[in-house]
Amino acid sequence: MATKITPLSGFPELLPAERFVERSIIASLSRSFELHGFANIETRVVEPLDRLAKGGEIDKEIYVLRRLQADDGGSDSGLGLHFDLTVPFARYVLEFGGKLEFPFRRYQIQPAWRGERPQEGRYRQFTQADIDIVGAGELGVHHDVEVVRVMVEALGALPLPPLAFHVNNRKLIQGFYRGLGIPDVTAAIRAVDKLDKQSADDVAALLVSTAGATPEQAQRCLELAGIRVSGSAELREQVAALGIADDLLEEGLAELAAVLDGCADVVDDHVGVEADLRIARGLDYYTGTVLEIFMAGYERLKSVGGGGRYDALASDGKTTYPGVGVSFGVSRTLVPLLADGVLAADRAVPSAVLVALADEESRGASNALASRLRRRGIACEVAASAAKFGRQIRYAERRGIPFVLFPGEQPEIKDIRSGDQVPIDPEAWTPPDTDLTPNVVRNLP
Amino acid sequence: MATKITPLSGFPELLPAERFVERSIIASLSRSFELHGFANIETRVVEPLDRLAKGGEIDKEIYVLRRLQADDGGSDSGLGLHFDLTVPFARYVLEFGGKLEFPFRRYQIQPAWRGERPQEGRYRQFTQADIDIVGAGELGVHHDVEVVRVMVEALGALPLPPLAFHVNNRKLIQGFYRGLGIPDVTAAIRAVDKLDKQSADDVAALLVSTAGATPEQAQRCLELAGIRVSGSAELREQVAALGIADDLLEEGLAELAAVLDGCADVVDDHVGVEADLRIARGLDYYTGTVLEIFMAGYERLKSVGGGGRYDALASDGKTTYPGVGVSFGVSRTLVPLLADGVLAADRAVPSAVLVALADEESRGASNALASRLRRRGIACEVAASAAKFGRQIRYAERRGIPFVLFPGEQPEIKDIRSGDQVPIDPEAWTPPDTDLTPNVVRNLP
Repeated sequence: MATKITPLSGFPELLPAERFVERSIIASLSRSFELHGFANIETRVVEPLDRLAKGGEIDKEIYVLRRLQADDGGSDSGLGLHFDLTVPFARYVLEFGGKLEFPFRRYQIQPAWRGERPQEGRYRQFTQADIDIVGAGELGVHHDVEVVRVMVEALGALPLPPLAFHVNNRKLIQGFYRGLGIPDVTAAIRAVDKLDKQSADDVAALLVSTAGATPEQAQRCLELAGIRVSGSAELREQVAALGIADDLLEEGLAELAAVLDGCADVVDDHVGVEADLRIARGLDYYTGTVLEIFMAGYERLKSVGGGGRYDALASDGKTTYPGVGVSFGVSRTLVPLLADGVLAADRAVPSAVLVALADEESRGASNALASRLRRRGIACEVAASAAKFGRQIRYAERRGIPFVLFPGEQPEIKDIRSGDQVPIDPEAWTPPDTDLTPNVVRNLP
Repeated sequence: MATKITPLSGFPELLPAERFVERSIIASLSRSFELHGFANIETRVVEPLDRLAKGGEIDKEIYVLRRLQADDGGSDSGLGLHFDLTVPFARYVLEFGGKLEFPFRRYQIQPAWRGERPQEGRYRQFTQADIDIVGAGELGVHHDVEVVRVMVEALGALPLPPLAFHVNNRKLIQGFYRGLGIPDVTAAIRAVDKLDKQSADDVAALLVSTAGATPEQAQRCLELAGIRVSGSAELREQVAALGIADDLLEEGLAELAAVLDGCADVVDDHVGVEADLRIARGLDYYTGTVLEIFMAGYERLKSVGGGGRYDALASDGKTTYPGVGVSFGVSRTLVPLLADGVLAADRAVPSAVLVALADEESRGASNALASRLRRRGIACEVAASAAKFGRQIRYAERRGIPFVLFPGEQPEIKDIRSGDQVPIDPEAWTPPDTDLTPNVVRNLP
């Protein structure tokens, strides 16, 4: 095998202890989603290129697959790696719709790929955790509340820094712009969406030049975008104070208020939900609820998750499938937290016990002792060589294995942290719960 | 979104109930591997093309990645999707070797890709579960026994048809051919490796024409390849009866006998281990133990797993890393078993309870009731709409949800299989263990 290793930028990989943290996070998310009735699926990593096209245009950040030296001379396969989990899910719903029960709740935790320039929080391969509820023909707006609640509960169960869900509603802003008399509502959304990168003055100028707004109208758009509040009564008050009357605005306002009210009993100091009328989520197919998730102390990552409502997640010509979902960026969140030492594992191996080896001839006896512990769910490994016991203890120490078991007629166990060594009954002894598996350690600054 | 869906041959996808089976299998494997001290890792899905080359040649079945409309006009990225989990693991060991403790035990359960012609058991995207132990500089031969034992135990815990591990040793066959005086030992291995596809006469002719054997020598090679036995004493006897003396043969024989003896206490009717001197594992880098795993009733899949010992899994010029491992084909095994109905899940959703909804106004009360159950680990969902209770019950029935909970001052639960409905205390009621989560059902023919 070749010897020179060049790390690949944008493709983060984890050491075993870091991977343990990631697995714990994924297991916790899965458990939370399942408690709410979401079934797991995985989709293949490739989609036909025309399905990866956005509004007819294929993003240049897509990785296209080519069979090397294929029979046809190595042309493209017409397949690309998916760049999110929504596109493959929409295709899955169309392909298997006849075998699914709607509303269909699914969660999906898989990598996706984008060929973009790597930077912190932006990778070429990254894992996402998505939940979506999709209906056949119709999907009650209470499901918008449901997906937000589920993600609030799921993320609230993780050992992360505090999180804030910033929620808005497309109908609210579209209705507001319409009621205000802005000529090009879509251009207005596109302009306001730039508020996180450009100054308010620049965005106001854009509203005038691209959306046909008057300077006064532009000012009102910015006032709306400035509303950030967590109570639904306060939200209604502040929007009403801007004095725009419009049916779509009212509908969106009611939906947004329902999300705030519906999450009131699950939010706490650790995870909050607020209305933030600046959130637009670009020009994606969102048609109602939109949201982004931010992590305290990691504002530089921009959002660590987001989502919303699509009135047409997918359509086969006969049936339209509306959907609502939230996506959480597992890699985007964890890779920086692991690099900063905010999250870590207290050991790199599953083993709670190293079974020592007196000599190579007694390996069978040490194996048998290990098997007895494993039958009771205690992870262990047998020493690789019959080195002096002191070396075997240091071997355990380097791995963070808390106990060394010495075989013999009367087996003895040593807690290598305290140095205490006591005789045990291998059919009865169990390590403390906190030593049974590795643990995730959170070091908040 | 486009409407026409063309299923992609070679990229199998599972329905939610089938995915539940796959997840159960993967969870069980992970648990078994961890009980033996194996730590999980995941590698990125891409490797530089030169690392994917086998003996300098890049297999034409590799999928190469190209960034569409990249700045350089869309040329190849120099990256390809990995075709197994051994190549990325070897690279991971070289890249992170300084941060790992050796011998390093890892397991890895991920997809891999090959652009080959799809057929049953052969897919373009397929998931594998690999365990390997790798040493820095040296790795005791007892680890060969260990990885086979671990995989026997891990597969024995799965609800699969009976499995047979067929084990051989490269040193044994090489030593035998050398002791026999065959001029080209490598060509002889390559010829004997064809025994599963060609007749004994054809292979004998190949041994003569490509390995330079005499017809008598060719016959002896076939006699060796015909040995199939599960006891180590019988193995030694049958090999000795062929009358070849060679040091390497003796070394390989001792190693193979050690695997048989070392697994004697973990094999049973469900998973067996035997010496099968026909197994060669192609011309891969194996240098000692080699094995393939077969599943009863599914001989048409050829092996469902395999592995062996590499004396140089990886090398950085200073350190050589020997390794030994076994790979199990998760997709290759499960996709046919699911298609045949041998494995199934008894429901497609995690929910054990559907909380009924009297009217849309009381959704908050039904949500609150659901939350109380979830806090005690009971997965549930709330009815999508306040339809008549009869329709809500049928909704649960279609999903296989066993219980419907009717809210109210005195909540009542209905087991929809028996029709029994009784008042319950939502802080105390728990479904039977067998209803708490979906179950994998095995229907052996």
